[in-house]
Amino acid sequence: MGKELRSRVETIRVRTASAHYPVWVGAGLLRQAGQRLRRLRPGCRRLFIVSSPRVWALWGRELARSVRAAGFHPEILLMNDREQRKRLSTVEQLAEELLRRGADRTALVAALGGGVVGDVAGFLAASYMRGIAYVQLPTTLVGQIDSAIGGKTGVNLRSGKNLLGAFHPPLAVLADPRTLGSLPAREYRSGLYEVVKCAVIGAPGLFRFLEQELPAVLAGEERCVRRLLRDCIRLKAGIVSRDERERGLRQVLNFGHTFGHAWETLGGYRRLRHGEAVGWGMMAATRLAVRLGRIPPAAAERIIALVESLGRLPALPPVRVERLYRQLFADKKKNEQGIKFALPRRIGRVEIVESIPKSAVLATLREFTGTRPSR
Amino acid sequence: MGKELRSRVETIRVRTASAHYPVWVGAGLLRQAGQRLRRLRPGCRRLFIVSSPRVWALWGRELARSVRAAGFHPEILLMNDREQRKRLSTVEQLAEELLRRGADRTALVAALGGGVVGDVAGFLAASYMRGIAYVQLPTTLVGQIDSAIGGKTGVNLRSGKNLLGAFHPPLAVLADPRTLGSLPAREYRSGLYEVVKCAVIGAPGLFRFLEQELPAVLAGEERCVRRLLRDCIRLKAGIVSRDERERGLRQVLNFGHTFGHAWETLGGYRRLRHGEAVGWGMMAATRLAVRLGRIPPAAAERIIALVESLGRLPALPPVRVERLYRQLFADKKKNEQGIKFALPRRIGRVEIVESIPKSAVLATLREFTGTRPSR
Repeated sequence: MGKELRSRVETIRVRTASAHYPVWVGAGLLRQAGQRLRRLRPGCRRLFIVSSPRVWALWGRELARSVRAAGFHPEILLMNDREQRKRLSTVEQLAEELLRRGADRTALVAALGGGVVGDVAGFLAASYMRGIAYVQLPTTLVGQIDSAIGGKTGVNLRSGKNLLGAFHPPLAVLADPRTLGSLPAREYRSGLYEVVKCAVIGAPGLFRFLEQELPAVLAGEERCVRRLLRDCIRLKAGIVSRDERERGLRQVLNFGHTFGHAWETLGGYRRLRHGEAVGWGMMAATRLAVRLGRIPPAAAERIIALVESLGRLPALPPVRVERLYRQLFADKKKNEQGIKFALPRRIGRVEIVESIPKSAVLATLREFTGTRPSR
Repeated sequence: MGKELRSRVETIRVRTASAHYPVWVGAGLLRQAGQRLRRLRPGCRRLFIVSSPRVWALWGRELARSVRAAGFHPEILLMNDREQRKRLSTVEQLAEELLRRGADRTALVAALGGGVVGDVAGFLAASYMRGIAYVQLPTTLVGQIDSAIGGKTGVNLRSGKNLLGAFHPPLAVLADPRTLGSLPAREYRSGLYEVVKCAVIGAPGLFRFLEQELPAVLAGEERCVRRLLRDCIRLKAGIVSRDERERGLRQVLNFGHTFGHAWETLGGYRRLRHGEAVGWGMMAATRLAVRLGRIPPAAAERIIALVESLGRLPALPPVRVERLYRQLFADKKKNEQGIKFALPRRIGRVEIVESIPKSAVLATLREFTGTRPSR
């Protein structure tokens, strides 16, 4: 990556009622982690880095050197970062390990890895001794543009995603785009579905950029990565700042996730990566919006075409639509009136819609289930 | 119990930065639970009552009738309320059950039982879908005067008490002293140690009352129960209102708990009830305060005499002092400078003391370990 990107660090601020914190974005940031964390926590020595073996092998040495130089005493807690291990038992094991090593309320946790590491380490920090400080060092595209920002932490239940957790804002988020260069191709592409989500929700300029620059985006060209990180992080930081607790506005971020979570869960988290499930989910939500007359067909076609252009999605799990419909009710985004869907109105605007007739949802699901193994 | 007590409900308010809520105290309150919860949650129908089989058998019918009459649809989740089951796995089982029954973010949880039920149900409510509302209906003395008030929720790790949890204030606390009449004698007496704790911390009048009225207090006479509930709840509500997150002042509530938790944990939660461990812990903390010259010996003797006068405490677990000392470090009340102890200065005042020499702590522990199986 070029010198220009390496030397420039952008700061995007999240300001909620409960916390203010910076999201720093810039190539080479992991090498500055020590000095930046030192400024946040002048007196702290003990830093517990939660990571996965693969990520630690790639980036651990660089991070450890940086934090040691800044006077931290880093200790490493490795975890399996498969979605199936995003469970309470993993949190408990890590907590026992923190206790064994003598971590007290002054300890600092750092999450170095993808969304699973960030969500688990965040919930660990939220719960250990009823809350200690932590920072997010996301190393995946989904992590950097979405899951590491906003203070949502948590784990899955057997029967549904992210159903146990806490709102626990980090002290800071450090996103070093160099780490994206070491992602497996499927993981990087999986993150691009979340980029499309951001574009549909509130960044029509980014949507056009993706349409026009798709080959360069898929190739991970530096200028493209910089653009999509900046646009997505600004969008997410802005939404979270206005609605930290997901009372209203923040729900638009669930575009593609209500259908997506159901497919992801029913596939046992093996068949589909999170982003891929969101890709399918955005197509389904868009078709549902068309069916309800909420979006012009031409705009819907552009959304679906962009999702499809990112590559061939893995097949959906072979599940009957009635079972899928029941699984939708295991999602958090519902109330006594029914499921809430985030549906596109146009490119750049998503709205929350309640009380959608079951028949419309089932008809939409039928378009996606059984007939075609993949697109 | 007399008509006078039955008809009088006292309201003590907790006002913290994050929440305001009432603690209602009065005989017969369980029969008013429905109408009172209805006023707090006008539109809510689904009420998930977490309780233990024993408590539910005694008080469930009365509570269910009251909430049904107020338009709630109550569902019952029973759990084993032994201290050993205050673990993350119990929270997960209850959460899966909530999900199976379709509980969403609008659901209300009610904890009907002792400290274990309250702590587990509270953490369940704090974590389920990242936080739903709950009320505390404590049925033990410890619950009514202490653990149900203040929003602390959580579970034990294998190696230490209350090490995973959340601050999650309830919507309300309803303390019906009639439930104390059905407590096993040992459970009631165990709660009296926490009453002594409150008296030493900040209620010297209550301390004298306990000294003078001990037989009536031990017999659970109505006027005594009323007095000690009122004094203790006021004290707790006042402290929590000034320091919800235990940044400073609230730490005095740990008087007796640092030693106590260590003995409780090392006894495998079988040998000592929580209050009994606190009884031993208060005697140890008082002896430590004498050793450090922090309390006049005459005042210390009064504290120890009152603890001893409540009855014969079960023997401490046979553990070497070095092992005990290490266990003290598994407590939350420490920082990088060492363990913090809440030590009495006089009757009615407890202070936080840091950097106590290990030799003084070990010498104090030696007074209590090995030499006498019980007092």
